[in-house]
Amino acid sequence: MTETTSARATGADDQDDRYVVGVDFGTLSGRAVVVRVRDGAELGTAVHDYPHAVIEDRLPGTGRPLPPDWALQHPQDWREVLHTAVPAAVAAAGVDPAAVIGIATDFTACTVLPTRTDGTPLAETAEWADRPHAWPKLWKHHAAQPQADRINALAHDRGEKWIHRYGGRISAEWQYAKALQVLEEDPQVYAACERWIEAADWIVWQLTGTESRNTCTAGYKGIHQDGGYPSEEYLAALHPEFADFARTRLEHPLAALGSRVGSLSAQAAARTGLPEGIAVAAGNVDAHVAAPAARAVDNGQLLAIMGTSTCHVVNGPTLADVPGICGVVEGGIVEGAWGYEAGQSAVGDIFAWWLRQGLPADYLQEAQATGEDPHQLLTRKIADQPVGGHGLVALDWMGGNRSVLVDHHLSGVVVGLTLATRPEEVYRALLEATAYGTRAIVEALHEGGVPVSEFVVAGGLKKNALLMQIYADVLRRPVSLAASEQGPALGSAIHAAVAAGAYPDVRTAAAAMGSVERHAYLPDPARADAYDALYAEYRLLHDHFGTGPDKQLHRLRAIRNAALSEAQQASSDPELRG
Amino acid sequence: MTETTSARATGADDQDDRYVVGVDFGTLSGRAVVVRVRDGAELGTAVHDYPHAVIEDRLPGTGRPLPPDWALQHPQDWREVLHTAVPAAVAAAGVDPAAVIGIATDFTACTVLPTRTDGTPLAETAEWADRPHAWPKLWKHHAAQPQADRINALAHDRGEKWIHRYGGRISAEWQYAKALQVLEEDPQVYAACERWIEAADWIVWQLTGTESRNTCTAGYKGIHQDGGYPSEEYLAALHPEFADFARTRLEHPLAALGSRVGSLSAQAAARTGLPEGIAVAAGNVDAHVAAPAARAVDNGQLLAIMGTSTCHVVNGPTLADVPGICGVVEGGIVEGAWGYEAGQSAVGDIFAWWLRQGLPADYLQEAQATGEDPHQLLTRKIADQPVGGHGLVALDWMGGNRSVLVDHHLSGVVVGLTLATRPEEVYRALLEATAYGTRAIVEALHEGGVPVSEFVVAGGLKKNALLMQIYADVLRRPVSLAASEQGPALGSAIHAAVAAGAYPDVRTAAAAMGSVERHAYLPDPARADAYDALYAEYRLLHDHFGTGPDKQLHRLRAIRNAALSEAQQASSDPELRG
Repeated sequence: MTETTSARATGADDQDDRYVVGVDFGTLSGRAVVVRVRDGAELGTAVHDYPHAVIEDRLPGTGRPLPPDWALQHPQDWREVLHTAVPAAVAAAGVDPAAVIGIATDFTACTVLPTRTDGTPLAETAEWADRPHAWPKLWKHHAAQPQADRINALAHDRGEKWIHRYGGRISAEWQYAKALQVLEEDPQVYAACERWIEAADWIVWQLTGTESRNTCTAGYKGIHQDGGYPSEEYLAALHPEFADFARTRLEHPLAALGSRVGSLSAQAAARTGLPEGIAVAAGNVDAHVAAPAARAVDNGQLLAIMGTSTCHVVNGPTLADVPGICGVVEGGIVEGAWGYEAGQSAVGDIFAWWLRQGLPADYLQEAQATGEDPHQLLTRKIADQPVGGHGLVALDWMGGNRSVLVDHHLSGVVVGLTLATRPEEVYRALLEATAYGTRAIVEALHEGGVPVSEFVVAGGLKKNALLMQIYADVLRRPVSLAASEQGPALGSAIHAAVAAGAYPDVRTAAAAMGSVERHAYLPDPARADAYDALYAEYRLLHDHFGTGPDKQLHRLRAIRNAALSEAQQASSDPELRG
Repeated sequence: MTETTSARATGADDQDDRYVVGVDFGTLSGRAVVVRVRDGAELGTAVHDYPHAVIEDRLPGTGRPLPPDWALQHPQDWREVLHTAVPAAVAAAGVDPAAVIGIATDFTACTVLPTRTDGTPLAETAEWADRPHAWPKLWKHHAAQPQADRINALAHDRGEKWIHRYGGRISAEWQYAKALQVLEEDPQVYAACERWIEAADWIVWQLTGTESRNTCTAGYKGIHQDGGYPSEEYLAALHPEFADFARTRLEHPLAALGSRVGSLSAQAAARTGLPEGIAVAAGNVDAHVAAPAARAVDNGQLLAIMGTSTCHVVNGPTLADVPGICGVVEGGIVEGAWGYEAGQSAVGDIFAWWLRQGLPADYLQEAQATGEDPHQLLTRKIADQPVGGHGLVALDWMGGNRSVLVDHHLSGVVVGLTLATRPEEVYRALLEATAYGTRAIVEALHEGGVPVSEFVVAGGLKKNALLMQIYADVLRRPVSLAASEQGPALGSAIHAAVAAGAYPDVRTAAAAMGSVERHAYLPDPARADAYDALYAEYRLLHDHFGTGPDKQLHRLRAIRNAALSEAQQASSDPELRG
């Protein structure tokens, strides 16, 4: 299914106007947007849903069952975005395809796949299609935690200095853990895997016909630091046959973000309807690529992409090892700066979780009468309460803690409940908890030597005015809003314009094509003072449950997992178990 | 409104059968039950709702507004129970009134009122009816906390040994704090108050025409210990004019529970339809009087009356100072034993609170389809989950903590929440939290020298089978159930039979007239083991938030109260403020 939107009214076109296409590959769909080079006007959009979505239960084709915590995708779904959404967006924009001068893409990460040397996914070969490990692993494939644990332990044991670039921990989601899982669980697939490549780079291969590797995913997901990958000695110590992994399956010159890595091939031109030979930019990650779309590319301008989770990206002038961040990569966001990434595992997901607990029947009736959605209803009911009026503090760890504790075995806590506590009060306490979590990240960056001068928000949650005001008050900083509703796709279009030579670099292109509502929310000093007191309470809870000697939340999770797996084993059918 | 129930089918009457009437005065209504002396069969019941219910906003008559936290009642409502529910119950039972040989009553406590020496309530005199302090203060009148704080501080300063009989703290609900509030806020009413009497004793005065004071309320609510009240020196140190309070307004020989304190007066006989001159027993408290109805009168048999809150009563052979209990009184439950009382401020109230947060729309639809109430629905959905399967632990302090922390500024905590946590899992965690709270009380009694051999449950919550099984597993003890649905009224009837001489003492009468389903729920060893691990987690939370050096819950409450009162003051109309 492809849905298109046309937005021609945003500015009169000039006969000489040129256009670029940005394509954003998300978890469930891909989005193409056609953008005018001179001012960033978004003229046409098309979204294509992946027919196979996230493959979690059974392999396509033979229906072979998958173990728990697996998450795969189908490469053909990604190609379809290029072949349907791109021409649909151009048509919706009403522009002459011949006036399109470049295309760029961004992807979820680390989404990674094994291919032949010619880029053919193993999953699409008759020989390997029935082997789960031959398929692309989506970012949220979480079955490689044992491998990640060993990767981290060994790195610390050997004193590998790159481990500090990742807040001290390599994620189970990233390239090495996933590859090591393939080697250990299906060595034949590993042997057949000639290239281990990010989908962000593989999709560029589909457009150009030649392989490339981008600075961003190589740095954040591929442990490429200071000009190289981890040593063969280190890799051999993980597993003897893993020694040449980086040299044989990853190694390739890196392409800077915004650089032209090739030209649109004849075949890709035919399928997309775009002119053959136009510029194709280096691949990129959906969060990082959004920074220029929000003009958040100067040092200290932190962009928070706030949706179900939050990703924070910010540039700094120097290298600093900040404990608990996801990573720091030179040129990882834009060239000429160190790009820092941090994150919160669950943000909008927490608010949605609270609504899944239900609403009182009279609230549901009220929402039906007013036409409000439940978020709007609860927000209206609590927006005017004075800060602290609910007496609650919560820990925003219902999805674990990505930064700065890097601990996915933590869980959520709500403190201060009374018989008078109302649903909208808990809801507000959860909004505030995510703001406290963000403040903890901003403070860690500051203390680590990465000052944050401005807080810019992109993503779906920027529409919640109460939430934005809470962030301004809790952070005691103005909150600016990215103007575009499709920041990653616009960000890719900006990179396409640079790759096509329309601008000398991403910063210049961002100034012309990006847009931001500067200081949309200002902190109120009295509310900020009140939040200081509550943030102090949050920190006490944070330290007690997160870093204190008593690992109570870990124990409760272990108790839960043991109880549930025991019950599952007692009731499961041995026929269905792997 | 008076509702009657007839239950003649429970046993064939003998022509020689005799009957007693028990009357239970609750918070919103009074209940009369007619009981057969030989076997305790409950033959007829009538309930009369108080027309004035709880007076919290304005005085009856003039409509004078009341300050916050006040709770009064109208003496006439109580008389109406005698005049309407008693004859209605006798009629419903279908017995000859001439065969009724005694009547006994029990009351909420501490519910207390100022009267003349003839028992006339000041509230019913033309001179004082418009003065709020002239009215009976209901147990949940909570405006005397400053007085209670001073009572406690002074008792500890002076080393008054009776303070340890009350877990170290006298409640703001009890006789002294409420009387001192009258003296300090309306000295004229205090001067006009010739008797300060529990409603439990005042209602007996209405039946007999003569004053009496019972051992139970004098001990638990009136600080009568070791044969006397607090000294005049102590009282004078509280307030000079308070020195003679006990001597002039309380002092009266105490009547043991089950003793005959008088005969039904001609006037009361005419109004109730009962024979003049029959036995009237000493007053009693609703919780304590239920023990013989459930045959829980031997040492170590703990009766938990479980409803919106839980009251625990248990006898012990010796005096022990148990920290955190509500009180210990010699003969406070039955003669010949030390009666211990403890409590949990909120139990069923916590479960109801969670349901007030709402239910998912599909759960509501499901409940409509099945006809289940929300409690039944959530219970069914979670009953089969293995212990610990939700990964949650909660603190049951949404209504504060009565025992063993005696701290009403505590609040509730929920720990271990994840994005996968479902409403029925939180519900179960709350059921379990109250069981852990009960276990903390049982352990405190044990450690204090009061062994608990058996756990007997009365009250509305005994119908929840999942809850009862959880209590059996968490306490690792069989749970027995009081058979009667109207334990206090049946308990009063048992006392009436003793007062009338039908049995030599309450224990003997309890054996004949009380009834219990012995060991209705047995602990499962595997589940009890699993709960031991979770109870250890509860204790860690309990100690961290309840007794640790960091008073976080107190601070959050103070922040809340300051924020709300500031907002209230900013918006309130000075015309309406006292």
